[in-house]
Amino acid sequence: MTYCVAMSLEAGLLFASDSRTNAGLDHVSTFSKMSIVEKPGERVIVLLNSGNLATTQTVVSKLGKLNAQGDTSLLTVDSMFDAARLVGEVLRGVIRTHTSGGEEQSSVDFSAMFLVGGQIAGEAPRLFLVYPQGNCIETSDDTPFFQIGESKYGKPIIDRVVKPETALDEALKCALVSFDSTMRSNLSVGLPIDLAMVRRDALAVSFRHRIDSSDAYFGALRNGWSQGLRKVFNELPAPEWFKV
Amino acid sequence: MTYCVAMSLEAGLLFASDSRTNAGLDHVSTFSKMSIVEKPGERVIVLLNSGNLATTQTVVSKLGKLNAQGDTSLLTVDSMFDAARLVGEVLRGVIRTHTSGGEEQSSVDFSAMFLVGGQIAGEAPRLFLVYPQGNCIETSDDTPFFQIGESKYGKPIIDRVVKPETALDEALKCALVSFDSTMRSNLSVGLPIDLAMVRRDALAVSFRHRIDSSDAYFGALRNGWSQGLRKVFNELPAPEWFKV
Repeated sequence: MTYCVAMSLEAGLLFASDSRTNAGLDHVSTFSKMSIVEKPGERVIVLLNSGNLATTQTVVSKLGKLNAQGDTSLLTVDSMFDAARLVGEVLRGVIRTHTSGGEEQSSVDFSAMFLVGGQIAGEAPRLFLVYPQGNCIETSDDTPFFQIGESKYGKPIIDRVVKPETALDEALKCALVSFDSTMRSNLSVGLPIDLAMVRRDALAVSFRHRIDSSDAYFGALRNGWSQGLRKVFNELPAPEWFKV
Repeated sequence: MTYCVAMSLEAGLLFASDSRTNAGLDHVSTFSKMSIVEKPGERVIVLLNSGNLATTQTVVSKLGKLNAQGDTSLLTVDSMFDAARLVGEVLRGVIRTHTSGGEEQSSVDFSAMFLVGGQIAGEAPRLFLVYPQGNCIETSDDTPFFQIGESKYGKPIIDRVVKPETALDEALKCALVSFDSTMRSNLSVGLPIDLAMVRRDALAVSFRHRIDSSDAYFGALRNGWSQGLRKVFNELPAPEWFKV
């Protein structure tokens, strides 16, 4: 599995993805799930992906090929909506090609999803979730974030904390706490975590960082969160109606 | 969906289940997912269920019929293992009957799972998870709890808190926090919450309680947990390597 989260905030966009892939439990590898298309001052687009690795790699390669030689590519589309639609079109085509391999392929899940966010000059920053069917949805003030992959363990803390006005550093902290919860409960999500931030109107990647197991801050955050949770939990009153 | 959790602790067994059922989003009802078979001083067995409501109700009815007139029933089996196997056998039979209804049924999911826990005189308390295929697994010191239904949102807090030596009131508090996280993130899990506790060697239900929306303690717990989480989160340091 995978865990990716992206947030669309007033201050800009935040992207975070783990990098563990697995086919069963005995074929575990590290692949970054983040790719970036950038023309500084004019556009910046960040893609996160989850799902079948052959599918997502093929989609990213095809998009790269279009960037190099296509009339329509992530480097030429006029809006983030068109960027998301282009990713969806390529994704749907790749899944269709892979699933038409014949009967013997039928039990393999070639599905994949993408988060596509960024800003193109003239537009505000935007963030989309692209489905395997090629269609997409966009964040709103009510729902300023999307998750793909193993999303449930880490959703409650984001539900509680993230709003459009949340500052970027607080959103980053929240994303990392969300990764901590996910990694504690699910083996298939693992370090390193790739982070990217796109400040509003920067039209370039404002910040990149990779968190691996030696990252002192992430270690301290995990400990602080764990101890803090235990403390809050211990201080909650016991039910007055309970006696055995 | 559903959310049920049961824990096997040194002090006894804890059971908690929500009571929302839904077929799509426009057919939402309240059904208890807990049933209890008790012969005080001799045996107590608690069942929690998730999955297709027609399947789970049929299984519970069939088990009740066996209790009334069967040679082998939850009232006569010699061990909790045999109790879990009996539930599994009935469950598998019901699913097989429902799925053999013909082609027009093929898109319906008749599947269901049960948690079966309790104590029969002569044995220690035991807790099993019964799969739709009829087989089952038992808790251990390493994994003293099982969840069925919409389990992921509420798993991290249980992973952090519950160990075999956890006291019953602390385990109950943890279960309720776990329900809070689940209900915040997933509409298909809802009040009331049914609680039951079986103290070791009591050979009877030691405690029952139903939490509905008017339960002052649960309301205070949800607020306290939410505010405490926010406080711990706010006190976590910001990443020193982050600047945009």
